[in-house]
Amino acid sequence: MKAALIFGSRSDQGIMQKAAAVLRDYGIGFSAHVVSAHRTPELLDKTIRELEEDGTEVIIAGAGLAAHLPGLIAAKTLIPVIGVPIASGSLGGLDALFSVVQMPKPVPVATVGVDNASNAAYLAAQILGIKYPELKKKLADHRAGMKNELAGQSRIEL
Amino acid sequence: MKAALIFGSRSDQGIMQKAAAVLRDYGIGFSAHVVSAHRTPELLDKTIRELEEDGTEVIIAGAGLAAHLPGLIAAKTLIPVIGVPIASGSLGGLDALFSVVQMPKPVPVATVGVDNASNAAYLAAQILGIKYPELKKKLADHRAGMKNELAGQSRIEL
Amino acid sequence: MKAALIFGSRSDQGIMQKAAAVLRDYGIGFSAHVVSAHRTPELLDKTIRELEEDGTEVIIAGAGLAAHLPGLIAAKTLIPVIGVPIASGSLGGLDALFSVVQMPKPVPVATVGVDNASNAAYLAAQILGIKYPELKKKLADHRAGMKNELAGQSRIEL
Amino acid sequence: MKAALIFGSRSDQGIMQKAAAVLRDYGIGFSAHVVSAHRTPELLDKTIRELEEDGTEVIIAGAGLAAHLPGLIAAKTLIPVIGVPIASGSLGGLDALFSVVQMPKPVPVATVGVDNASNAAYLAAQILGIKYPELKKKLADHRAGMKNELAGQSRIEL
Amino acid sequence: MKAALIFGSRSDQGIMQKAAAVLRDYGIGFSAHVVSAHRTPELLDKTIRELEEDGTEVIIAGAGLAAHLPGLIAAKTLIPVIGVPIASGSLGGLDALFSVVQMPKPVPVATVGVDNASNAAYLAAQILGIKYPELKKKLADHRAGMKNELAGQSRIEL
Amino acid sequence: MKAALIFGSRSDQGIMQKAAAVLRDYGIGFSAHVVSAHRTPELLDKTIRELEEDGTEVIIAGAGLAAHLPGLIAAKTLIPVIGVPIASGSLGGLDALFSVVQMPKPVPVATVGVDNASNAAYLAAQILGIKYPELKKKLADHRAGMKNELAGQSRIEL
Amino acid sequence: MKAALIFGSRSDQGIMQKAAAVLRDYGIGFSAHVVSAHRTPELLDKTIRELEEDGTEVIIAGAGLAAHLPGLIAAKTLIPVIGVPIASGSLGGLDALFSVVQMPKPVPVATVGVDNASNAAYLAAQILGIKYPELKKKLADHRAGMKNELAGQSRIEL
Amino acid sequence: MKAALIFGSRSDQGIMQKAAAVLRDYGIGFSAHVVSAHRTPELLDKTIRELEEDGTEVIIAGAGLAAHLPGLIAAKTLIPVIGVPIASGSLGGLDALFSVVQMPKPVPVATVGVDNASNAAYLAAQILGIKYPELKKKLADHRAGMKNELAGQSRIEL
Repeated sequence: MKAALIFGSRSDQGIMQKAAAVLRDYGIGFSAHVVSAHRTPELLDKTIRELEEDGTEVIIAGAGLAAHLPGLIAAKTLIPVIGVPIASGSLGGLDALFSVVQMPKPVPVATVGVDNASNAAYLAAQILGIKYPELKKKLADHRAGMKNELAGQSRIEL
Repeated sequence: MKAALIFGSRSDQGIMQKAAAVLRDYGIGFSAHVVSAHRTPELLDKTIRELEEDGTEVIIAGAGLAAHLPGLIAAKTLIPVIGVPIASGSLGGLDALFSVVQMPKPVPVATVGVDNASNAAYLAAQILGIKYPELKKKLADHRAGMKNELAGQSRIEL
Repeated sequence: MKAALIFGSRSDQGIMQKAAAVLRDYGIGFSAHVVSAHRTPELLDKTIRELEEDGTEVIIAGAGLAAHLPGLIAAKTLIPVIGVPIASGSLGGLDALFSVVQMPKPVPVATVGVDNASNAAYLAAQILGIKYPELKKKLADHRAGMKNELAGQSRIEL
Repeated sequence: MKAALIFGSRSDQGIMQKAAAVLRDYGIGFSAHVVSAHRTPELLDKTIRELEEDGTEVIIAGAGLAAHLPGLIAAKTLIPVIGVPIASGSLGGLDALFSVVQMPKPVPVATVGVDNASNAAYLAAQILGIKYPELKKKLADHRAGMKNELAGQSRIEL
Repeated sequence: MKAALIFGSRSDQGIMQKAAAVLRDYGIGFSAHVVSAHRTPELLDKTIRELEEDGTEVIIAGAGLAAHLPGLIAAKTLIPVIGVPIASGSLGGLDALFSVVQMPKPVPVATVGVDNASNAAYLAAQILGIKYPELKKKLADHRAGMKNELAGQSRIEL
Repeated sequence: MKAALIFGSRSDQGIMQKAAAVLRDYGIGFSAHVVSAHRTPELLDKTIRELEEDGTEVIIAGAGLAAHLPGLIAAKTLIPVIGVPIASGSLGGLDALFSVVQMPKPVPVATVGVDNASNAAYLAAQILGIKYPELKKKLADHRAGMKNELAGQSRIEL
Repeated sequence: MKAALIFGSRSDQGIMQKAAAVLRDYGIGFSAHVVSAHRTPELLDKTIRELEEDGTEVIIAGAGLAAHLPGLIAAKTLIPVIGVPIASGSLGGLDALFSVVQMPKPVPVATVGVDNASNAAYLAAQILGIKYPELKKKLADHRAGMKNELAGQSRIEL
Repeated sequence: MKAALIFGSRSDQGIMQKAAAVLRDYGIGFSAHVVSAHRTPELLDKTIRELEEDGTEVIIAGAGLAAHLPGLIAAKTLIPVIGVPIASGSLGGLDALFSVVQMPKPVPVATVGVDNASNAAYLAAQILGIKYPELKKKLADHRAGMKNELAGQSRIEL
């Protein structure tokens, strides 16, 4: 059970950390890589080949602005790619969202919400849960626990 | 190896048909359901339970306008949900895109491009390919074939 | 004369407090609930049933991002639902506005402006004022008072 | 049980007709008025006074472009106003949506989706249903009927 | 030579002050009024009548959010109305811009940029300059002076 | 009493014709020019000088896409410039609207709605009406006539 | 003097043809390639290497939707890349515009307007004109000719 | 080898400084000018003529809001113009982006990302690199160096 996190710039690290935390919660092993689609395209090719060789099963890729990284990875491998559009600059992440989600067929990127790296990791866990029943069990337990916890606090005074 | 297609209205059928065609290409069995998040919420609950019971491994959900259907399904099951925002009405599908992709944690929807139901099915195939090596093989063959075919036609006269 | 406030996350409490203040001004009794459409869907069903049983006549629901909560409530009850799109994240609340207002027929949400929970409560008061003449009277007195107060201060030096 | 439809231009009639049809379905009496906020403001004042005098309980107002009509009516009466933003011109109705929904406190407009006059009428029916139990009953029967009808057709072949 | 400034809320005063400063620079007399299109519509009618009677020749109106004020004034008088969309709330003033500029014929509002009350006053001066040659002269002198001043500083070191 | 119409391309002629018709209705003399800010900038300078010399009192300028024409004219003369953003290309005229309205101080363009050349001419008439009482009278008569005509048709059957 | 045209899909051919026509007008030799960033990434690498070897001096790349092609080429070569965002799908080309223009440093794409492949070729000619004086001369002649031609037709009747 | 930087207002200096730094890195001589398209149009004409006479080969122009400066320069010279849309005011630079990029043919502006003046300078260097092999060499060395440096740090712990 193996994931990878890839993002293009150190400035995205704070956002991507949230994905790492969730993967760790679920006991999903992962490697992390700062590789830019534009600054280091050859390194990206090399990294993707290594991830394929070491059995990585899902990739979470985050990027801002033109945000080509997730789509470019998806073009080079059949490992499912989850894309995190990152709000950076003055357009509120709408630029990154469009760049990540509007991929042509047959090269999809599984896009989550702007800056929502946590959800990328939850999605990775659900995807891996198809193959790994114990992970699916953990997800189910976690959801049930969350529901119980939240249910007890729902009625409030305003 | 089992998928499901769910969409909220007969008017979305033309778009969702494209997903069905791709699933069929890859030999992925699927059931199809017209169930509205808003008009038939109880039926949706029932449908989700049935899909869980019959071993459905990935769900593709398409919706337009407020487009709550994919997110609502994701709230009720841990089967991964792939969301297709459908352009309907006068806002070009931006309404549906936002509603499908901007999900709160820990309830992700794997969103693809507006009206891009084909990509939803390719993503489903890649996700199932983690567990089913023969499917991953088929995907790899298909990609290699496509590359060969396109490579032979790349130089053109304009 | 009974209203309810529902919102999906503690982080929305500051905005929703403004609705509570207005309801209190008009002497409209209300209950308040933190229930997420996505994290606790079953609790939402239960809460809606309880509100129906205890005679709640109007529901104010606030949500940010994908903001499915108001529409989902509207799908489960015929009590009129007033939706407050909440600006959260980097898209300025446009995501929430689209998700709340673009509901399919026949499941409307009476949407007010982004973050404008006060107006949701004023609208609730006007709606209840159809049935309760004394409330309509209070609204009319309040408006008249406001007009008088503002009229006396309209001419200023700049 | 009395409603009114107001819109600013004959060109909006096709959209507003959908509201009229729904009101008729529910046996809600209504009057219809073509009155522009900008071309005939005095007539609008007169119309609003007449509606108040003849006991109108809810007003549905539709407008495109700058779309001030619903808000202006709301400023002149405490009868609840439901606003229908109408897509007209090249901005897809986003102009009308913003103009209708972003009202300042304490003058709300209950906004429905772009061009969705049907939903305005359904909302009117739900609002009147607070006071008129037989109308609420009709709404409930209609919803139950719709659910039954849709439930029987949900499983399809694609 | 007489202008008027009207805006709907004390919170817009900082922006509108910039218009007042420019009018003063050009020796254009003006009155200033805080009158809301929605909170005090009758007062607005009265204010417009008074402005017409005292010979006001141009009106600058500023508003945020739904921003109906400039258009509503334009509907009630033939004095030219210059509209200032004010950024307020989370949509960056796009809501106000659409509401101010997208007026139906034959009721135009002369719209300037978001928050650009200075430009509203410059436009007022240019409009009044058609009738008052000495004002046009002042504008020409000011522009010439500005050009001279800026020309002397154009070459810089970076 | 003299106006001018300037637009950058023959393809804008259909839109600008609407302004010409309104000017003619009000007996306002005008000249019309196809001059591009980008293709014929020197011709634009020459045209502006000629308009200044022949006593033109207001200029209506229409442009699409980057739509610099109105602003550029405003930079070269103190004759008030009314700008008509024209929807052309795939962005619905939002590009032209931003380019026309967001002018820096002290160079305003009096912007009207997208494609709304009629309103540009009405605004020109109101502006000229400050100086020419007979024109103001005509405007007032026209408005009164319009109100009467519309008032007689306001109540309709739907 | 050598240019290249690259675009990702046969469906973009109509738009890119306009660039070819302009290049031909200026006697600029060029090759044309249909190569997708996502479907044939390896072929893209090969094509770029060949263009570098045969002395191509400027590349025009067109793409729609996620539109990664121009940026990806820019990441792989130092030949200047001119990007043409192509409107395709329901978002009016805003998706492509953001994806093409919002490139991270130091990997710029010289972006032109949506669907404006003609301008891409004019820009290529201006860029090559720095090195090739005879081309610059041709551009100057063409502009002078255009100005003369347009100048003679500027005054029109409306 | 000669470039020029032009921007319309001292407030843009911070952004444009980034371009100056990159030009200096590459040993590209440049002059810098604060010249407004709207406040000092004649000075702009004079500046452009001087730049043409002293052999300037590429111009980088930055502007915010209506942002006509780059396009206006492009209309007056055949020196390639690189445009930097600057985020200023409340619309996030979308106004400037549209105004800079959506130029009509045959007057292109080579547009880079919002506020991305560094990329404008890198683009200038690539364009000049067509003519000046030593500059192209420097760019290639720099890219290779950057790749090496980044490659060594790509694997991180999260």
